Amino acid sequence: MSTASRIRCADLNDRIMSAKEAAALIPNGVNVGMSGFTGAGYPKAIPQALADHIREQREQGTEYKIGVFTGASTAPELDGVLSEVNGMSFRIPYQSDPIGRKNINEGRMDYMDVHLSHLGPDVAAGFYGKISVAVIEVVGITEEGHLIPSSSVGNNKTWVDVADKVIIEVNHGQPAGLEGMHDIYQEDFLPPHRKPIPVLKPEDRVGTPYIKCPKEKIAAIVETNSTDRNSSFSEPDEASKQIAQNILQFFDDEIKAGRLPKELLPIQSGVGNIANAVLAGLNDGPYKNLTSYTEVLQDGMLEMLKSGTLKMASCTSFSLSPEANQELAENIEEYKDRIMLRQQEVSNHPEVIRRLGIIAMNGMIEADIYGNVNSTHVMGTRVMNGIGGSGDFARNGYLSIFMTPSLAKGGAISTIVPMVSHVDHTEHDVQVIVTEQGLADLRGLCPRKRALEVINKCAHPDYRDRLLDYFERATKNGRGQHTPHNLAEALSWHENFEETGKM
Amino acid sequence: MSTASRIRCADLNDRIMSAKEAAALIPNGVNVGMSGFTGAGYPKAIPQALADHIREQREQGTEYKIGVFTGASTAPELDGVLSEVNGMSFRIPYQSDPIGRKNINEGRMDYMDVHLSHLGPDVAAGFYGKISVAVIEVVGITEEGHLIPSSSVGNNKTWVDVADKVIIEVNHGQPAGLEGMHDIYQEDFLPPHRKPIPVLKPEDRVGTPYIKCPKEKIAAIVETNSTDRNSSFSEPDEASKQIAQNILQFFDDEIKAGRLPKELLPIQSGVGNIANAVLAGLNDGPYKNLTSYTEVLQDGMLEMLKSGTLKMASCTSFSLSPEANQELAENIEEYKDRIMLRQQEVSNHPEVIRRLGIIAMNGMIEADIYGNVNSTHVMGTRVMNGIGGSGDFARNGYLSIFMTPSLAKGGAISTIVPMVSHVDHTEHDVQVIVTEQGLADLRGLCPRKRALEVINKCAHPDYRDRLLDYFERATKNGRGQHTPHNLAEALSWHENFEETGKM
Repeated sequence: MSTASRIRCADLNDRIMSAKEAAALIPNGVNVGMSGFTGAGYPKAIPQALADHIREQREQGTEYKIGVFTGASTAPELDGVLSEVNGMSFRIPYQSDPIGRKNINEGRMDYMDVHLSHLGPDVAAGFYGKISVAVIEVVGITEEGHLIPSSSVGNNKTWVDVADKVIIEVNHGQPAGLEGMHDIYQEDFLPPHRKPIPVLKPEDRVGTPYIKCPKEKIAAIVETNSTDRNSSFSEPDEASKQIAQNILQFFDDEIKAGRLPKELLPIQSGVGNIANAVLAGLNDGPYKNLTSYTEVLQDGMLEMLKSGTLKMASCTSFSLSPEANQELAENIEEYKDRIMLRQQEVSNHPEVIRRLGIIAMNGMIEADIYGNVNSTHVMGTRVMNGIGGSGDFARNGYLSIFMTPSLAKGGAISTIVPMVSHVDHTEHDVQVIVTEQGLADLRGLCPRKRALEVINKCAHPDYRDRLLDYFERATKNGRGQHTPHNLAEALSWHENFEETGKM
Repeated sequence: MSTASRIRCADLNDRIMSAKEAAALIPNGVNVGMSGFTGAGYPKAIPQALADHIREQREQGTEYKIGVFTGASTAPELDGVLSEVNGMSFRIPYQSDPIGRKNINEGRMDYMDVHLSHLGPDVAAGFYGKISVAVIEVVGITEEGHLIPSSSVGNNKTWVDVADKVIIEVNHGQPAGLEGMHDIYQEDFLPPHRKPIPVLKPEDRVGTPYIKCPKEKIAAIVETNSTDRNSSFSEPDEASKQIAQNILQFFDDEIKAGRLPKELLPIQSGVGNIANAVLAGLNDGPYKNLTSYTEVLQDGMLEMLKSGTLKMASCTSFSLSPEANQELAENIEEYKDRIMLRQQEVSNHPEVIRRLGIIAMNGMIEADIYGNVNSTHVMGTRVMNGIGGSGDFARNGYLSIFMTPSLAKGGAISTIVPMVSHVDHTEHDVQVIVTEQGLADLRGLCPRKRALEVINKCAHPDYRDRLLDYFERATKNGRGQHTPHNLAEALSWHENFEETGKM
């Protein structure tokens, strides 16, 4: 497709430049708001040019770092290249890049892990200082100079609103047919003048299909031509399939008990192989005309849309394998009315999530016997990725389900432990825990009863007796019997792992 | 006031009976939804009659227990008398009775601690089984048989909606002038047909001043005549006053930085002496025409309403000293337009809290150096009261502030610890921690920087060096540097306390 058909606003032609020239517009020390959410819609060229610039500056003896704000995780072309040159002094709100992770966990990069629904409003409120520059991938620019978002929306509206300078990447490699799939809510996100967000059903349109941007803010336009870099999903393994079966059985039981309608309620699903297996299970089940109100549309949801199991999906981003990406691109007109991409304040907004009654399904690193969940930290100290939107959905949804295989590292780790080494979801926020062993329904149970439910239903048999032993001794140690613990021993399983390589 | 003027629906006169007769309508083993929130508006006569009945039954060899669901804490006449006979098999969602606490922590009573905004909708969804009976204090019954709530609303609408049998206490000791102060939202609280709650300002009325109840559900009416039993507040001590000063200074700074308007945003405040000191500080400050959107209206807020510092307050309950109660009763017509009592799903609803941009100020038991907060557990095992609405407000508010004196038990306990022994508010939900030592502003800080901020600003000097030593050694132990911890030692301060009586 030609430049003219993507950049329809002729006034802006004089801003077209190379990635290197555009990167030079980003000064040392500033905060930059970049597009990108779960490996979709991130800028492909400018971060690399900036990384080159940082390396050159450093070779000349000048330290050069920026703060990077995104929607969520990006890809090697953004987090990878900037992490490689250790070019980020601060990173927020979610990242999954292996080099970035190493920089964080070795103390070379400051990282802050926040709820995805919170960041945009908190930046707009000024809680994170000034965001000087926005770097945003789009599929095109309208006649009026408005930005047509790409394969994710994330925080792009906020970055454009708050930045002084907006740098655009127009990516010819993204399907032009994405135009029209976005819904950008235009009301103010700052109190005291906020209004109700009028989303009453997942499919409700409440905004415009583009991001408004004053032309004079656009400092540079860089043209690119490459697809999002997403890896393929692996075929679900036995544990993932069993987890999916356990959840489907639970849904059946809830429908029979009159606690869920037969078309369920809008589903939210985290990303990854287990989530994909659950979606595949739903797709194979008796369901029709389900809806989804979620962050990320992954392969499993596209399959469900194709089969008619899913009527429509609202999200803020795609996260598709190359094969699914091709399926979407080739049939985009058929999907257009059934997929909506919103900014993440809205896709993850507590107001909408509570109103719609979302069924929240998220992965986790570990859970403890009392129902506290760790989604972020390995052995209490090393961050894996981040909390993402799991808190937005688990806290405010109709049902909050957390899932993981019961073992990790070939059995060296039990994902059910006496006490989690980090808490991201408290005992007050976790209703259901699922492993391939079974499903623990914690609703209505006091902590002591939860412990037996979690141990007996979810723990792997290799660790079950030790967990029961811990619990029984804790109930006899003369301390509080609301949440029995032996504090001196509560984190010893993690300490064992650090010392010996197994729990 | 006469019976006729309180019970205006003559059809119901035949349901008037004694508390003993009414209590006999509550079968063994059922769940009962009772009114009551922070010591206000709880039934005064039936729980005592029921406790007597339970004692008699037990003397005859029949075990007799019920599940008790309320709004929040009640008073000796409810939680006290039923705890004394160990008559509750299950208690939810918040309780502060000393005998009840002992029963829970010694394993004789199952207790579940949930977010106050969640309980009503979750009960309506059927997650807690059947609620058979509702026992509700009211100030009167209208001509149509509708219930005029008393000094709290709590979950009363839900209990009336879901119960088969409704037992009413008409309390002649509550001011008749409470009529008209309540606002009961009538829309459905179950998905998928929920609508936006049209509260755009704290003062917006969105419902009716009474709870609708089909007359045929009313199984009994008992007349009582006694006031809510609330204790007086003590004069703020020096630590409380200093905490208040630190928060007021923070507000000033935020106004100067353009992050808060000069009339602030609607305030929420927990209950207790520290909260009252903060309110007294606000009342002495330069503020005019503030608003409040909170759970509980306590003495400090009544003072602020009187002085004009506060324009109006929306809450779900009063919690007033006898003196303040008298002030309210004597001048109720003047307060009527400026105080609104809503059901707790609405007073604590994430949708409204996020929209209005509440400033959430809550007490805590302890915080750790990384900003995790424990609001509920003493030394990780013994529950104190419960999380109450602190999570509803902290997670969804504009600012989340947690406060406590830096020492407890005469210095034997540091309220700033290496790792909290229980997490109720995660690192993702805590923006500001305040003690009398100072205020730690955690916004925009990675965990390592938070640790130094919390230790240097909030910890008591007696513990500061040990905290710094822990943190420094944790940063050098070769483990993850995102959230440095020595796991074997992280809970040792609590273990020390259990073993030696000091941390």
